[in-house]
Amino acid sequence: MSTVDKDTEPNHDVVAVGNALVDVLSNESDDLLGILDLVKGTMAMVDQELSDSIYAALSPGVEASGGSAANTVAGVASFGGRAGFVGRIGNDQFGQVFAHDLAALGIAFDGAQAKADGPTGRCLVIVTPDAERTMATFLGVASDLSPDDVPVDLIADARFTYLEGYLWDQPSAKEAFRAASARAHDAGRKVALTLSDPFCVDRHRVDFLDLISGDVDILFANDDELRSLYEVDDFDTAVQKVRNHCEIAAVTCGAEGSVVVAGDDVHAVPAHPVDQVVDTTGAGDLYAAGFLYALARGYDPYTAGRLGGLAASEVISHLGARPEISLADLAPSVLG
Amino acid sequence: MSTVDKDTEPNHDVVAVGNALVDVLSNESDDLLGILDLVKGTMAMVDQELSDSIYAALSPGVEASGGSAANTVAGVASFGGRAGFVGRIGNDQFGQVFAHDLAALGIAFDGAQAKADGPTGRCLVIVTPDAERTMATFLGVASDLSPDDVPVDLIADARFTYLEGYLWDQPSAKEAFRAASARAHDAGRKVALTLSDPFCVDRHRVDFLDLISGDVDILFANDDELRSLYEVDDFDTAVQKVRNHCEIAAVTCGAEGSVVVAGDDVHAVPAHPVDQVVDTTGAGDLYAAGFLYALARGYDPYTAGRLGGLAASEVISHLGARPEISLADLAPSVLG
Repeated sequence: MSTVDKDTEPNHDVVAVGNALVDVLSNESDDLLGILDLVKGTMAMVDQELSDSIYAALSPGVEASGGSAANTVAGVASFGGRAGFVGRIGNDQFGQVFAHDLAALGIAFDGAQAKADGPTGRCLVIVTPDAERTMATFLGVASDLSPDDVPVDLIADARFTYLEGYLWDQPSAKEAFRAASARAHDAGRKVALTLSDPFCVDRHRVDFLDLISGDVDILFANDDELRSLYEVDDFDTAVQKVRNHCEIAAVTCGAEGSVVVAGDDVHAVPAHPVDQVVDTTGAGDLYAAGFLYALARGYDPYTAGRLGGLAASEVISHLGARPEISLADLAPSVLG
Repeated sequence: MSTVDKDTEPNHDVVAVGNALVDVLSNESDDLLGILDLVKGTMAMVDQELSDSIYAALSPGVEASGGSAANTVAGVASFGGRAGFVGRIGNDQFGQVFAHDLAALGIAFDGAQAKADGPTGRCLVIVTPDAERTMATFLGVASDLSPDDVPVDLIADARFTYLEGYLWDQPSAKEAFRAASARAHDAGRKVALTLSDPFCVDRHRVDFLDLISGDVDILFANDDELRSLYEVDDFDTAVQKVRNHCEIAAVTCGAEGSVVVAGDDVHAVPAHPVDQVVDTTGAGDLYAAGFLYALARGYDPYTAGRLGGLAASEVISHLGARPEISLADLAPSVLG
């Protein structure tokens, strides 16, 4: 399968556009979710005041760079891929941490250009004893992302432009999303979208359906998100619908693995085995990393699904949403 | 053994005075230590510029509250003890993180009083494949600690006042140290000191020897620090010297366990078994936590050494310098 149409080979495998966030991770009881009025497994958008009041109720935390799309490019870089990131950071310590961690991975990110007055976004990630994560995000200046922030040369120089659905929650970020998508297609590149969250799908269903049939070449979703998108209870019905809407759809199903839809082919891809699931934060983000890296390197969609599963298995075996060991070292177990 | 002389029972087990720091932890190769001119296993004091240039050379990190004495009171709180902390934070996000994490543990800390203009201190903690940690600390406003910052009522209300040797690196912090020690003794409480680092001992040997024979009731050190203190190569010689200098000395010897010297008794305390040593950061700090908590609850020095070993074994089994699981849940394996 060829995923590049134009003659020039791009210098980047994946450039992601998303919310720049620092995660604050803590282990909490199920009871606390109820007290805080948070729905397990989802992401709630909160303002600074609510973020602060939730934070005050949490156990001691660990801070680490996060953000869904940024996690994905961190995974691509860990595989040895060339990646870039577009998103807004604040002029504060969390912004420094976020920029440092991308730079340390060799990810193209213009921190000076990306810096805005105001706080860097933070995501409170509450991990319950079942390893499920529940998130409360205060976007801070991430929500300032606008079309002016989209570096057109970088987008044109990337095989895949990867967009997170969460961007759709802010009007200006939505325009940045559209600008990046248009630029990628102008340059003959491919556009990938992750649906991010079932509630995010619910908020933007019509727009997402429109995007998927028009602008998106590769769709990432989990089973809940895909069923929400098509408002159907049955997973197979949703799969039959999506196959007509985009070139490739990769749908994760938790411990069941994933389903990869590519043209007429529907592949059930088994999950990669994990000794112990500690924290599912970043599972979908890292699945997308492995998938896109494999496609960028010329592998078929089924193999891409397996590499996605491998990357997801690493990140769920520890606290935090980014790989702790080199994915390049693990890749031969799938790629041979 | 009674460790409390006055009639009134204090409301706190341990109040620590130390440098408020946020740790930035990363896994690195041995080669990088050489490139950065850092000596494995030690702590180097650096200015902001050098801290920034070292940070730029490090892999993606994880941020977590640290500081030697603060780690100790975090351990005391995890055992279920009542603890307090005295130290300076900056008016920034790392300061908020530090204060939040103490508050979440129920540790008495006057964040508003402790806040100064300037950056919160940060400790770059480089963990090498042998699980050893090497640190570069930029103190920031932690170095502003002065006698005015010492809350005399809190010190008087604590069974043990615990002081870190690192305080001796700053003139005003040294005065705070002396003020806290004097207040504790006036109230009939005990004073504990940790020697912190062999180079720290080297910098302040005469002062530390003077303190230990006069002001310090309980001394914590590791074998390197104790031998450095007395400038002897032989561990037993150092042990013979220290037994005449303070009421109790607890000397950690890495995987060998610890030696507890209490009056005429010298106890060899075996190490608590660990499946895998991941990161030795905080081992000494948590040993002191278990030791002081046990003494505060009326246990003998040998049992205190065993509880110290238990706490150390938890913290070295994961990345980071504070307990990840409740030490109160683990304590029965030693205390019955």
